[in-house]
Amino acid sequence: MEIALDIAKEGMKTGEVPVGAIIVKNNEIISMAHNEVETSTNPIAHAEVLAIQRACEILGNWRLTDCTLYVTLEPCIMCMGAILNSRISKLVYGAGDNKLGAVESQSDFIHNPLFRNIEIYPGILEEECVDLMQEFFQKIRWSGGQL
Amino acid sequence: MEIALDIAKEGMKTGEVPVGAIIVKNNEIISMAHNEVETSTNPIAHAEVLAIQRACEILGNWRLTDCTLYVTLEPCIMCMGAILNSRISKLVYGAGDNKLGAVESQSDFIHNPLFRNIEIYPGILEEECVDLMQEFFQKIRWSGGQL
Repeated sequence: MEIALDIAKEGMKTGEVPVGAIIVKNNEIISMAHNEVETSTNPIAHAEVLAIQRACEILGNWRLTDCTLYVTLEPCIMCMGAILNSRISKLVYGAGDNKLGAVESQSDFIHNPLFRNIEIYPGILEEECVDLMQEFFQKIRWSGGQL
Repeated sequence: MEIALDIAKEGMKTGEVPVGAIIVKNNEIISMAHNEVETSTNPIAHAEVLAIQRACEILGNWRLTDCTLYVTLEPCIMCMGAILNSRISKLVYGAGDNKLGAVESQSDFIHNPLFRNIEIYPGILEEECVDLMQEFFQKIRWSGGQL
């Protein structure tokens, strides 16, 4: 998660919402990514989706069975769907997302039987992950909406 | 939807689950795509996601407000999340997907207030869309799992 936080900070420097993700298989980091929505003008380019795509490219397989995704922010609905579609086994995340998070805030959704095979561990390095998000949104407020 | 069906058929020729999507703005087709999961080894490469990415690239904007997405199959959870994130206003689809569809089969999910601003029209050219899916899965069975 510390590495994911560092990646999130890299993303923030380019004006992105600071979310970082890494994918681990057999104790080895396969891929990492931060949000690229603004820089690539692409609403799909969330850290989780990019990390999944890169991991599949590296493994030559679109099934990421036995992989763990670490991400600094609770995934949104799209990213939880991508985690499901890619067969990721384990999700570890830091800060909760009260508005768009698909695990805690949309809890009706995560209790769907489709997600029963994914282990989920929330709140890892939560304080650091929350602090980073707050820092970002404070900067946006100070700058009148633009970083 | 007829155009989306033609695109889905193109995808089927390459061994993909035959799903086709187009995005329309001001009565003009902005983008189109079929599934590319197998050919690109990418679990994110659903027709809807690819059509959204291409539309954003063409418009130079990740917000697809006032756009309509036509797709031959009921979107999965990932694609409904992508539709939400991209601010698409209207979804029109053909066949329902009893297993993974995020509108009809996962109805707890689509009744989430986050989706209240998206107009949804199911069952358009439903018979043709269902026939195409059935044709694909029959071919798979006949061929022992490989097209």
